[in-house]
Amino acid sequence: MFPLNQWYVAGFSWELQDKPIARTLLNQHVVMFRTGSGEIAALENRCCHKSLPLSCGTIEERGVRCGYHGLLFAPGGACLEVPGQARIPVKARVKAFTVVEKDQILWIWMPREEGGTPTCEAPDYQVHSDPRYRFRGDVFHYDAPYQLIHDNLLDLSHLGYVHLKTIGGNAAVHMNAELKVEAAGDQVRVLRYMPDSSPPPTYLGAWPFAGRIDRWQEVEFNVSHLNIWTGGADAGTADMRDPQRGGFHMRGFHAITPETETTAHYMWTMAANSHPDRPDMTDLVYEQTALTFQEDKEVIEAQWKNMQRHSGAPQVDIHVDVGPNRARRVIERLVKENTQAAPQPVAVP
Amino acid sequence: MFPLNQWYVAGFSWELQDKPIARTLLNQHVVMFRTGSGEIAALENRCCHKSLPLSCGTIEERGVRCGYHGLLFAPGGACLEVPGQARIPVKARVKAFTVVEKDQILWIWMPREEGGTPTCEAPDYQVHSDPRYRFRGDVFHYDAPYQLIHDNLLDLSHLGYVHLKTIGGNAAVHMNAELKVEAAGDQVRVLRYMPDSSPPPTYLGAWPFAGRIDRWQEVEFNVSHLNIWTGGADAGTADMRDPQRGGFHMRGFHAITPETETTAHYMWTMAANSHPDRPDMTDLVYEQTALTFQEDKEVIEAQWKNMQRHSGAPQVDIHVDVGPNRARRVIERLVKENTQAAPQPVAVP
Amino acid sequence: MFPLNQWYVAGFSWELQDKPIARTLLNQHVVMFRTGSGEIAALENRCCHKSLPLSCGTIEERGVRCGYHGLLFAPGGACLEVPGQARIPVKARVKAFTVVEKDQILWIWMPREEGGTPTCEAPDYQVHSDPRYRFRGDVFHYDAPYQLIHDNLLDLSHLGYVHLKTIGGNAAVHMNAELKVEAAGDQVRVLRYMPDSSPPPTYLGAWPFAGRIDRWQEVEFNVSHLNIWTGGADAGTADMRDPQRGGFHMRGFHAITPETETTAHYMWTMAANSHPDRPDMTDLVYEQTALTFQEDKEVIEAQWKNMQRHSGAPQVDIHVDVGPNRARRVIERLVKENTQAAPQPVAVP
Repeated sequence: MFPLNQWYVAGFSWELQDKPIARTLLNQHVVMFRTGSGEIAALENRCCHKSLPLSCGTIEERGVRCGYHGLLFAPGGACLEVPGQARIPVKARVKAFTVVEKDQILWIWMPREEGGTPTCEAPDYQVHSDPRYRFRGDVFHYDAPYQLIHDNLLDLSHLGYVHLKTIGGNAAVHMNAELKVEAAGDQVRVLRYMPDSSPPPTYLGAWPFAGRIDRWQEVEFNVSHLNIWTGGADAGTADMRDPQRGGFHMRGFHAITPETETTAHYMWTMAANSHPDRPDMTDLVYEQTALTFQEDKEVIEAQWKNMQRHSGAPQVDIHVDVGPNRARRVIERLVKENTQAAPQPVAVP
Repeated sequence: MFPLNQWYVAGFSWELQDKPIARTLLNQHVVMFRTGSGEIAALENRCCHKSLPLSCGTIEERGVRCGYHGLLFAPGGACLEVPGQARIPVKARVKAFTVVEKDQILWIWMPREEGGTPTCEAPDYQVHSDPRYRFRGDVFHYDAPYQLIHDNLLDLSHLGYVHLKTIGGNAAVHMNAELKVEAAGDQVRVLRYMPDSSPPPTYLGAWPFAGRIDRWQEVEFNVSHLNIWTGGADAGTADMRDPQRGGFHMRGFHAITPETETTAHYMWTMAANSHPDRPDMTDLVYEQTALTFQEDKEVIEAQWKNMQRHSGAPQVDIHVDVGPNRARRVIERLVKENTQAAPQPVAVP
Repeated sequence: MFPLNQWYVAGFSWELQDKPIARTLLNQHVVMFRTGSGEIAALENRCCHKSLPLSCGTIEERGVRCGYHGLLFAPGGACLEVPGQARIPVKARVKAFTVVEKDQILWIWMPREEGGTPTCEAPDYQVHSDPRYRFRGDVFHYDAPYQLIHDNLLDLSHLGYVHLKTIGGNAAVHMNAELKVEAAGDQVRVLRYMPDSSPPPTYLGAWPFAGRIDRWQEVEFNVSHLNIWTGGADAGTADMRDPQRGGFHMRGFHAITPETETTAHYMWTMAANSHPDRPDMTDLVYEQTALTFQEDKEVIEAQWKNMQRHSGAPQVDIHVDVGPNRARRVIERLVKENTQAAPQPVAVP
């Protein structure tokens, strides 16, 4: 089960090119496209005639045309044309999802009841248009349930074991870092500060540090995505807890959208600032990040496979699990709300 | 379920070479071979000793020899030899199927009750020996139930969307073609005529048309196979409904034999006539046809996968479904007959 | 079900290098490693924290360190370290198996009840240290239940059909060979002698025979492994039933350890003596043997696949099945013993 009546990330603007794309989101099989006239759409990925995925079809000015017998569907789901037949059957339509495009992110509303409409605005993510940063991103597929990815991102202590080659650095420093967990509403924040530590390889490649650095990791968990602000400044030169601090900044957007109960999409971007004396390092940062996330994927998929082998085996908690466990309680509470009855009108006698 | 007490196509003569071949037909695991002395055979593909597939064995003068301990089986299923043992156990035999070879087609009888014998002759297909035509064919495997292939072949309106590169042509012409559906007994015929239309790429490659053509598509559905007569003549030069019409002729033999409830064999040949002024175009026609059928396979397998994802979702019928739906009723009726009790002798008091 | 309270082969000494290895044995997911200090260990392959396989971790002086958050486990299963946390949780430990290393073979005790300790010594296999022989071996994985491999090894009559290219030779000779089956306790012995027969290709490659040979095959079945002594001497020069006979000797060690009910590990070595006039033939014998066992694997996996297709179909026994059937009765009896209640103290009134 997943929290519903929520915005989830369905993809990124740059994915909508000349072909429709198929993606399963929370067990819903969705086709997404941008019509010739520029409208974006998310429909159930099944022609109502012979069930061919509409993602096998072609995009036209007014919608998507099925690749089997040519039925044409509008972004709202209505069938606009049945070739060779004047009358369009009343039932000829496909389910449509509410989808909005903001900050190059495609947000889809996943209602509790079919046809339910959004009860709030889709989230903002201003980093994508902040001139101080440049970013690139990607979409990874996980053979693992979405909450294992939450766990991973809310507990960055694994960096010293999993990511030695990129953003890791010394394991002991990570494990002994000062850790603060805050929770409010549906958000959880995990803050870690590592003063006077060695800069890891990715940082050294991207920024001309003088020597040791003060390093920060600020993780903000939201139901649909995590924002992870990390970075470092020359040791002792700034207050690393100050949001206006200088130095090298990586701003990670990590949307985790369940595909099914046991698989997930990991849709991420990584933005970074450039040092004035250095050429643009966006590609380097992207490549190192992709490598890092590939390492996480291998670990998490191995973990999930093993959890299935040892189904029901108990797990022992340690100090790093505080943040992940908070987020699990948020998800648990929201999932419960899915099935709670809507408030009933009081019967007046 | 499949119609039983029927001949089905098991393969083609040219497939029986020096090795036995394994093929599952209507859930029966069959090994087929031609003995050294020329007899053809279809046996259950399992040695009665240790269950090795007999298709792992070798062909000899008198039958097939198991590749594990060398038991030899005759085309009728009897064990002829147990190496190292004089006495052949009474139970040492394998199930045999009735199989006949006609017109380079291998027909297998699929009885309602085990051991049931044919109640009619296997079908003829004289095109394979008609001197006006040359042909080639192939065996495709489908990850889709057999009736989805029937649907596809009985509704050639999809040509304008699926087969633009080969035999398609203008979508509107296909969708608006005059269509006639006839049914009689277990046969369904779908006739489509497209006067004064543009010749599609395959036709242009194979025949020197003067310009626009009168084009015909005559589909004859039988339980085990469809005959599809298509072709075209220079527009206005002949009555395209006349079986003796001139022009370019493609004669397709399309045997669809269920492998299981959800997979099928598509065993086809395509014959064509050659224009006296042109070199033999058999290979071109074969290659274009194979390409076309590959396109169908991709569409139908994508359709089936999606039907499974959306199990039970309703489909909306349109005008092109008349022929396919007729054929589905034939199959439905025949499947029902499988389970009807045989006529009972009347008890005389 | 498998016989329990038994030693099984878990692997070979040379497999324990710088990385831990994962292997499932009798449905137990095991990680094996040799610590930096030289101790060997077999643990449940799951970190008790977040369930990552310990085989994804790294070997240290004192044990294996998990590749996710760095927990360190000793060969006995105790957690020695939780990075960043002083106190080690009481439940932080993983299940350990009793494992011993003898003759370059890793033996694992599979107890009837969890935590049960060995009731006997692990078997010896002195061939591995006998100066007359040199050996090499390998570990094969089988998609087939372990008893099908027993059947195969206890009935060498299949050599004439399956292994013509290597150790086979004339099929009739194999099928008509004198055969003796002996059983005692949990052992079964199958003895076959083929006087005055043609040496097969592998023999000819490894030994300078004068012409025809007296050939022996002595198979000894044990629950965890089979010893197969085969070889040949120039015809008429020695008593081939005498253990002190001369000629060419192949000593096969064939450990078959169930992985699951339907898959198995086949861990084998092949030792042979060298003729004084010839260079060392160990590599040739190894390669020919590996080729032979690959042929067996293909046959047995095809057999198993077909047994599943024809689930429940009866099999007809022939003369060669006496040895295999004896061994099946041993297994059956031992499996029954697994579930027999331990002797109950008599209630004194």
